[in-house]
Amino acid sequence: MTLRIGVVGTGAIGRDHMRRISKTLSGGEITAVTDVNLESASLAVRELDLNAEIFPDDASLIASDQVDAILVTSWGPAHEGTVLKAIEAGKYVFCEKPLAVTAEGCMKIVNAEMRHGKRLVQVGFMRRYDSGYVQMKKAIDNHEIGEPLMIHCAHRNSEVNAAYTTDMAMTDTLVHEIDVLHWLVNDNYKSVQVVYPKKTRHALEHLKDPQMITLETEGGIVIQVEVFVNCKYGYDIQCEVVGEDGIIKLPEVPGIVYRKDAQLRVNLLTDWKQRFIDAYDKELQDFIDSIRETGEPNGPTSWDGYVAAVTAGACVTAQKTGEREPVRLGVKPEFYKEIGKTKEII
Amino acid sequence: MTLRIGVVGTGAIGRDHMRRISKTLSGGEITAVTDVNLESASLAVRELDLNAEIFPDDASLIASDQVDAILVTSWGPAHEGTVLKAIEAGKYVFCEKPLAVTAEGCMKIVNAEMRHGKRLVQVGFMRRYDSGYVQMKKAIDNHEIGEPLMIHCAHRNSEVNAAYTTDMAMTDTLVHEIDVLHWLVNDNYKSVQVVYPKKTRHALEHLKDPQMITLETEGGIVIQVEVFVNCKYGYDIQCEVVGEDGIIKLPEVPGIVYRKDAQLRVNLLTDWKQRFIDAYDKELQDFIDSIRETGEPNGPTSWDGYVAAVTAGACVTAQKTGEREPVRLGVKPEFYKEIGKTKEII
Amino acid sequence: MTLRIGVVGTGAIGRDHMRRISKTLSGGEITAVTDVNLESASLAVRELDLNAEIFPDDASLIASDQVDAILVTSWGPAHEGTVLKAIEAGKYVFCEKPLAVTAEGCMKIVNAEMRHGKRLVQVGFMRRYDSGYVQMKKAIDNHEIGEPLMIHCAHRNSEVNAAYTTDMAMTDTLVHEIDVLHWLVNDNYKSVQVVYPKKTRHALEHLKDPQMITLETEGGIVIQVEVFVNCKYGYDIQCEVVGEDGIIKLPEVPGIVYRKDAQLRVNLLTDWKQRFIDAYDKELQDFIDSIRETGEPNGPTSWDGYVAAVTAGACVTAQKTGEREPVRLGVKPEFYKEIGKTKEII
Amino acid sequence: MTLRIGVVGTGAIGRDHMRRISKTLSGGEITAVTDVNLESASLAVRELDLNAEIFPDDASLIASDQVDAILVTSWGPAHEGTVLKAIEAGKYVFCEKPLAVTAEGCMKIVNAEMRHGKRLVQVGFMRRYDSGYVQMKKAIDNHEIGEPLMIHCAHRNSEVNAAYTTDMAMTDTLVHEIDVLHWLVNDNYKSVQVVYPKKTRHALEHLKDPQMITLETEGGIVIQVEVFVNCKYGYDIQCEVVGEDGIIKLPEVPGIVYRKDAQLRVNLLTDWKQRFIDAYDKELQDFIDSIRETGEPNGPTSWDGYVAAVTAGACVTAQKTGEREPVRLGVKPEFYKEIGKTKEII
Repeated sequence: MTLRIGVVGTGAIGRDHMRRISKTLSGGEITAVTDVNLESASLAVRELDLNAEIFPDDASLIASDQVDAILVTSWGPAHEGTVLKAIEAGKYVFCEKPLAVTAEGCMKIVNAEMRHGKRLVQVGFMRRYDSGYVQMKKAIDNHEIGEPLMIHCAHRNSEVNAAYTTDMAMTDTLVHEIDVLHWLVNDNYKSVQVVYPKKTRHALEHLKDPQMITLETEGGIVIQVEVFVNCKYGYDIQCEVVGEDGIIKLPEVPGIVYRKDAQLRVNLLTDWKQRFIDAYDKELQDFIDSIRETGEPNGPTSWDGYVAAVTAGACVTAQKTGEREPVRLGVKPEFYKEIGKTKEII
Repeated sequence: MTLRIGVVGTGAIGRDHMRRISKTLSGGEITAVTDVNLESASLAVRELDLNAEIFPDDASLIASDQVDAILVTSWGPAHEGTVLKAIEAGKYVFCEKPLAVTAEGCMKIVNAEMRHGKRLVQVGFMRRYDSGYVQMKKAIDNHEIGEPLMIHCAHRNSEVNAAYTTDMAMTDTLVHEIDVLHWLVNDNYKSVQVVYPKKTRHALEHLKDPQMITLETEGGIVIQVEVFVNCKYGYDIQCEVVGEDGIIKLPEVPGIVYRKDAQLRVNLLTDWKQRFIDAYDKELQDFIDSIRETGEPNGPTSWDGYVAAVTAGACVTAQKTGEREPVRLGVKPEFYKEIGKTKEII
Repeated sequence: MTLRIGVVGTGAIGRDHMRRISKTLSGGEITAVTDVNLESASLAVRELDLNAEIFPDDASLIASDQVDAILVTSWGPAHEGTVLKAIEAGKYVFCEKPLAVTAEGCMKIVNAEMRHGKRLVQVGFMRRYDSGYVQMKKAIDNHEIGEPLMIHCAHRNSEVNAAYTTDMAMTDTLVHEIDVLHWLVNDNYKSVQVVYPKKTRHALEHLKDPQMITLETEGGIVIQVEVFVNCKYGYDIQCEVVGEDGIIKLPEVPGIVYRKDAQLRVNLLTDWKQRFIDAYDKELQDFIDSIRETGEPNGPTSWDGYVAAVTAGACVTAQKTGEREPVRLGVKPEFYKEIGKTKEII
Repeated sequence: MTLRIGVVGTGAIGRDHMRRISKTLSGGEITAVTDVNLESASLAVRELDLNAEIFPDDASLIASDQVDAILVTSWGPAHEGTVLKAIEAGKYVFCEKPLAVTAEGCMKIVNAEMRHGKRLVQVGFMRRYDSGYVQMKKAIDNHEIGEPLMIHCAHRNSEVNAAYTTDMAMTDTLVHEIDVLHWLVNDNYKSVQVVYPKKTRHALEHLKDPQMITLETEGGIVIQVEVFVNCKYGYDIQCEVVGEDGIIKLPEVPGIVYRKDAQLRVNLLTDWKQRFIDAYDKELQDFIDSIRETGEPNGPTSWDGYVAAVTAGACVTAQKTGEREPVRLGVKPEFYKEIGKTKEII
């Protein structure tokens, strides 16, 4: 009854998840591993002291009868192929973002999954499992603040390296807000606009930083997100939903309170990995538990992966045009309507 | 040496200022009063037990040799005329906002004052005297957060009455942010755009509420202001400046902290008059002190009144077009460059 | 109708009050000044550009028909004599703490005032005018937290100089809590105990610091006060009242909020003078206004000065014995029962 | 390599831990269960769908070669016997508090464990695994606040039922502070005093509530703990350590921030089980991991269990005498000196 998991991709995030499954969580077991670099796969297995078989590629790993579910933590462009093969084989998939690097690729997965007839795929948007967002979701669903009207967000990193490009602010950074916000308010994006404030001197020459994104939903909610990836002071995620009857806001990361050196202060995080560490645990535990208990995963769906890809794409267009750009999602299939509701996880 | 003040307009704000000058502040004295309704003027004098002469109109009051400075708290459209007459007579003026209801009217005052050759006029933008804004100004001027890049603001009222129209969100509400923000970051507005989020059910049919305003400065700072005048929960002014090296934010209004009924809480204000009560005291005391000590007022200038009028006008245009509208201020005269610096007032 | 004030003592606190009365407050005027050092008196008058007569001593100043009220800001041991002379002359008195350096001295003043038959004296316990304490007082009087059961306080200074002795922690520092807390909960002290925690290395050899004081009231409220006068990090006043139905706590001093250097922080005060600057203004304005409006001062009474002296004395005894020591106040005279209620001052 | 755990006692806390081990944590397995009520044992096994053998009593369960470690969650008075049998058999023990109901019983366990020669026992003081306390411990150990001088704590429950007696405030409630505080500051208790403030009307007739406890350590730290078990407003744990160079305080429980109904607020917990839910997970995971990795548990030791019993006993005496009572611990054996250091767990 333990969920037997095959891992495709043993880079940093892959190993983190492998450690999580084998050392922290309950009910899952890593039985198979592959990577484009087989040395890396072997090393990961040895380091974690796992009893897992090394496979030469994703196809053979997926085919193994020792594998119930595939954890896709390879290079982004490789996700689509692996996920499609896994669906073909009727295996469960936990796929790190992005589900696919194009909206078309995501739609292929959506269609394959619908043809299969049962939900198999969960996408690694972990914020839906964060205690703060879950509390906000409950408050909104319980009508504690009336209809949401506006959302003010900030996504700030201390700094980024030279490989980070202006469009990645949409596809790698904002994409987390894109996923969590439409889930939070049960609405669909309609348009997006991007403006560039004065640039920080801390950003490299090729990078526009910060950026201000305005998303509008079909229901009329106006969402403003500041993306600032060289803010220097820390890793900081802010989200405030303004409703007709009140406002709710994410809590600050809890820390001991100092009175020292004429200051009242709390330390902020600088490492993004620490911010959602509980959420990473919970998303994977939920993946394992849901499949074991109901036969289907319960987290963010292939459709959510598609929404993220389409919306991030529109944001990249809006970066270039400076205009309000439409987000064209099409109609959400019935297949995805009744699923994807996060259970009580706190 | 006491500053002898003549009051033009004895409505609510006029009487508040009269009480302030006679019962709370030091160095000023109300010696003359007029109002379009002379009954009201007499009543105000009796209620406050003042030793002040009632004049039939602003012209005769300005002409009195018992009057050094004119406090203009009449109906907005009457401000321009009174201020021009006072300048003509070489008298000091403290004029409640708006300085004039048109940009042209403000410019006439600016020109009259420059012709006079010495600064006479202070406009009643009290926020520059608020302890929180003053602390922010100092932090920015001391380069504690590097160059300002973005500003996030909210201006929320519990509710407004039926007389409040959509454009008043710009001319009466946002106008306070318009004044205080360019002062805060020493920059000029370049453009403005307004979008309308989903409307709250608590707003009357004729009113668009909330509204989201984006102002850009010549230096590239992007300013977002949420104006929400039926937010129901209280009167709440938020301002956060994001700089290259850090962020600063207005403090919450201090209140005793309750632990009660499974909540940790602080009471919020509901009455806007209480929020800036100290700032009202300080702006008038500074007007009195500066004139007594230096022969000129030191607070917001006629030029600031003109900036507010032009910018609010562009905002009203932007409300209608939905587009980014230019703010055309022209060049700030040398006359206004070296003055208007707020002294240490905290 | 302006209250004509004669000042006895032109040291630091005396000049602060003189500046306050002449430059900030309304309704009072300094008409007479004396000091044991007449040079100092003259200098103070010149610096503030006052139109006030210099008197050779307190007796002649009190006798002047240009003086309605005496501000006693001389050296502590001189207070008693001046206050008694002023009562004898039927003049109002605002006396900085201590009212007298002995309980007997305070009782002489109480008796003199009762013989005079009308309240004349206000003691300079300014905390009762602090916005935070006033909010707490209202919350308690409105039964928002039920019956008070415990109070947790801290009184912390950054550091003290070599002249500060262990008993001054009671007579100069704790005395402010002694005054404000019995007013806050409408109760009388019954006993006090002092314990000495481990000593900070930052205290000089002759000084015991910190100290923990436990006061019990007749009604059974247990009050714990930490006095720590070399805490290094700032000037910090904490007060939390635990009631049957909830808890209330003084607000932190409001300051702009920084996100910088991996910290979320607010600056704390280091200078005690800034903490209660509004309260100093309010106590003197209330003294002036109450006398002008009702013919009697309205703030802390001679009896409150006596309570402070007796209680601080018991605390000094408790410092030496380490035991629970009684606080013997006697019965509060009817004369003081109906007065001393602070008006709405915020 | 999985740690095989036998459970003695299937009441509420026993089942919670069983669920934790089987559904949430990693590396442990429940292979044996017993209870004085064998029906209860069977029901627990069925409900959790465990593959575990039911034993007729603790002795036979301990003797089973399918069991590596014993989880003692029986009735308090039964703990001592089971723990001694387990040590005798050389099996690991995780024992819920109390280790034994008397100091003598705890000392027997200490001696048995030392005779065995290797550490076997961990006591269920979970607070040492709470993120807030761990941060405080690190800050103190890193000398961020200099030497600790005073500690201010509060332990508040919404309400207790009729079975809760005055001494339980020491043995069941304060005992958590007793354990965590000496660990926090690396010091030993020397004396304790208890005073009773005015009683809340919400306490039943037989119960004294609240209570104020003052503990002193050998190093001179003065610790004040308010125990208030009918505070009505919520479950609230406060801890502030005052050091020579600064102060640190536990964070508030994080919650989304509301602006609603003229209040700025965060919800507080009412159920104590939620407060330390992460700490419960971490203490058991650490027990499992430490034994698997090092062959010894790493958490609170038998000696810590003994310290808690002796200190709580002195507190109960102090409740009766009202005097400062000594805490006589004797010398900590070398055996316990080098162990028991909490690893990095956050």
